[in-house]
Amino acid sequence: MQIFDLQKSRSFSPDKLKKNNLAETDRFFCDLYCLEPGQEQKPHLHDASDKIYIVMEGRGSFRIGAEEREVGRDQGVLAPAGMEHGVRNISNERLTLLVFMAPKP
Amino acid sequence: MQIFDLQKSRSFSPDKLKKNNLAETDRFFCDLYCLEPGQEQKPHLHDASDKIYIVMEGRGSFRIGAEEREVGRDQGVLAPAGMEHGVRNISNERLTLLVFMAPKP
Repeated sequence: MQIFDLQKSRSFSPDKLKKNNLAETDRFFCDLYCLEPGQEQKPHLHDASDKIYIVMEGRGSFRIGAEEREVGRDQGVLAPAGMEHGVRNISNERLTLLVFMAPKP
Repeated sequence: MQIFDLQKSRSFSPDKLKKNNLAETDRFFCDLYCLEPGQEQKPHLHDASDKIYIVMEGRGSFRIGAEEREVGRDQGVLAPAGMEHGVRNISNERLTLLVFMAPKP
C-alpha cells in the first residue's frame, strides 16, 4: 500500500518554491508546494489540465485569470484548464499548499 | 474565482458516510468525506480512475487490494485504478478525508 506523509514531505528551499511530490499516477499528480515568505509560482496556464490548490498552512495570494484573492488555511482554489493561475506568499509566515492536477500536463 | 472552504463543507450524517463536494470539473472531483465512528466506505473499485485519500482529522483503517492499514492525520493513501479500496472509521473520533479522483468515473 502506498502511504505518503505530508509532514515528512514538507520541505522548503531558500531559493524558490519547492514542489514535493506526494503521489503520482498516469492520470494525475498530487504535490505539496512549500513557499517561504516572498516566494511565488508565477502565473501560467495548462490547456487541458485542471488544478486544485488547498492551503494547509499560512496564507497565499492567488491569481486565477484576472482576479487576485488572498486565501488561508483550510481553503482551496480551483484553477480550470485554459485559465492563467499563480500564487504568491505575501505573508511573513511559511505557506504550504496541497496541489492536485489532472491529467498530468 | 472558485474558492471552497473545508471547515464550512465539513458535515456528518448519523446514517452513513457523508460525501461533501468541494470542487468538480470534467476531469476530476475533490470531496470531503466525513465519517462518524463506525461508518465506512465499503471496498469497491474503478477500472480507469485513480483516487487519493488524505486524512485531515482522525484515523482511518484503509484497505487497498488485500492489504489493510491504519492511517492518521496528515497522511494519505493512493488507490490505483483496478484495485479494490475502502475505508472504515474504527476509532472513537470523527474521521475527515480529503478525496481526489480522476478521471471522474
